[in-house]
Amino acid sequence: MSKFWSPLTASLVPYVPGEQPKDKTYIKLNTNENPYPPSPKVIDAIKAAANADLRLYPDPTCEGLIQAAAAYYGLPAQQVFAGNGSDEILAFAFAAFFDPAKKLLFPDITYSFYKVYAKLYGLQTELIPLDEQFNVQVDRFHSDNGGVIIPNPNAPTAQLLPLDEIRALLENNPNQAVVIDEAYIDFGGESAVQLISEYPNLLVVQTLSKSRSLAGLRVGFAFGSEELIEGLNRIKNSFNSYTLDRLALAGAVASFEDEAYFRETTAKVIATRERVTEQVISLGFKATESKANFVFISHPSIAAKGIFQQLRDRGVLVRYFDQPRINEYLRVSIGTDEEMDALIAALREIAGS
Amino acid sequence: MSKFWSPLTASLVPYVPGEQPKDKTYIKLNTNENPYPPSPKVIDAIKAAANADLRLYPDPTCEGLIQAAAAYYGLPAQQVFAGNGSDEILAFAFAAFFDPAKKLLFPDITYSFYKVYAKLYGLQTELIPLDEQFNVQVDRFHSDNGGVIIPNPNAPTAQLLPLDEIRALLENNPNQAVVIDEAYIDFGGESAVQLISEYPNLLVVQTLSKSRSLAGLRVGFAFGSEELIEGLNRIKNSFNSYTLDRLALAGAVASFEDEAYFRETTAKVIATRERVTEQVISLGFKATESKANFVFISHPSIAAKGIFQQLRDRGVLVRYFDQPRINEYLRVSIGTDEEMDALIAALREIAGS
Repeated sequence: MSKFWSPLTASLVPYVPGEQPKDKTYIKLNTNENPYPPSPKVIDAIKAAANADLRLYPDPTCEGLIQAAAAYYGLPAQQVFAGNGSDEILAFAFAAFFDPAKKLLFPDITYSFYKVYAKLYGLQTELIPLDEQFNVQVDRFHSDNGGVIIPNPNAPTAQLLPLDEIRALLENNPNQAVVIDEAYIDFGGESAVQLISEYPNLLVVQTLSKSRSLAGLRVGFAFGSEELIEGLNRIKNSFNSYTLDRLALAGAVASFEDEAYFRETTAKVIATRERVTEQVISLGFKATESKANFVFISHPSIAAKGIFQQLRDRGVLVRYFDQPRINEYLRVSIGTDEEMDALIAALREIAGS
Repeated sequence: MSKFWSPLTASLVPYVPGEQPKDKTYIKLNTNENPYPPSPKVIDAIKAAANADLRLYPDPTCEGLIQAAAAYYGLPAQQVFAGNGSDEILAFAFAAFFDPAKKLLFPDITYSFYKVYAKLYGLQTELIPLDEQFNVQVDRFHSDNGGVIIPNPNAPTAQLLPLDEIRALLENNPNQAVVIDEAYIDFGGESAVQLISEYPNLLVVQTLSKSRSLAGLRVGFAFGSEELIEGLNRIKNSFNSYTLDRLALAGAVASFEDEAYFRETTAKVIATRERVTEQVISLGFKATESKANFVFISHPSIAAKGIFQQLRDRGVLVRYFDQPRINEYLRVSIGTDEEMDALIAALREIAGS
């Protein structure tokens, strides 16, 4: 505490990102990074943009990038927003759309940043429990709320909500914004972007961090009706006019120009995920049905926290959440096949089978 | 307006950045960019960082960059914060330190983003008038306030407040944060960073955009006591863990490794500024005493708005602020000598001398 802090600052409980240890080299399966490098076209575009023009401000409207993302989904540019990672866009969305006078609804088990944003913007929250199988119970998102946010697939459970259930959620909540956080959608889900023309209250948030292998570049998008995009721009332009630097803009545009590479690398991640899921089950673990670039696993007789530590001792980092309902689970990012072979070998030793 | 906007969103009056016209090529003297490219070492470092590691998140603590900035000023790393441009850091500082129950004080003529941030965070404000010569009147910043922010040099007036007046301001306001926004300090001012060890309430904000020629990279810093830096980190980590991408981090570190280039280019800008100031005065203009990379000029008989438009017609962009007290002034960024020769030639035609 400091007497120079605002009351807000004193009240916050900041987010803690997955650890980035520097003590030794780990097999890093703890922050859902893509094991494959970004497209060579992205690297080339960034190198080309590393020039004297860095003395100039970037385009504050991100026009070229927004056009590229709009073309990818066949949307008009007015329905697209770009930001400094999807985390920044989520922060803007919490401020732009959620009504502090009512409760914001999100699943009890979900991306742990949501409750942090809610504190930052003074929002009341109501956690809607997942069912016993970790499914989002859409019918429990009653309409008397100040907004709804759901990741799809959900994190850390990895499970996908079918589009007809998203549609049901939107039908039940026509008077407030519904945000679908699709950070992991490219690993087997169907995007709700196709519903935007029907539902002016739907905001879909995506990122280049996972499926485009660009966590280090910090670029995310939101797609929605013009009025929602204008709302995001009002917050952004009251916060920072230039959120994306020239290099991020150049690299992000190029990432949309290499569809073949994107298809190839996401297919590899999916294939590895399916293989790893089978293997961990054969070792006695249970696993949720993942449509993301990670698996969510639990052993019936060995404590997750112990497995986490034993993996760490063997040089494999995964993510453990010490919170109710999921404290017997581990979230394991999908790495290369070699990395996952090392994981499986370590789990085989730990599980003693 | 949209029914999906929060009350906050509806209340905002967003900032409007200087225009970035795309209709033709202008001599661009309207956004205080540096006319010289960044150091070649910066370009090389960015190209080297454009590699497969972009698949990985950047270091959320910005450790290497913070160490470089700390070493530059001889501070411990715990007294340094890095952000996505100084605009983002200012936004964080408004949330972190200023007390909504009392009035935030800043000059009546100043960086126009301050009132936008204040709206975003629900802060009351009191504008303290500059005197007739546009000097900040330090003794009018009475101590019954929720915080103080002053740019030094001030913008758009370009005038510098001497360090002993900053010290007087700090002595008069020991119980709340005092933010000194030093975006332009390297063009002839003395930084208040040297006062940090004496005043735990002093936050100094700087940027690589101007004197390091990196407006396109989006990197800023704050320097202050550990408790102030912790306050900024609490807000940041409730907003976005990874505000600086890998390329910005790499380029920014390199910018501190080329002190000779920095000295040379800032000296050139200063020399051009001094020469241009003399020339505009000889054309009948008056000019404030600038310690920034721009001049603030006015003609006794020709309306500033007309000069602005006539310069634009001649392909020269400058900044005009249609607001009380300064609506007969133009803010003109310092470009290359060739660009400023073109400006002077155009002003000579317009002033008819």
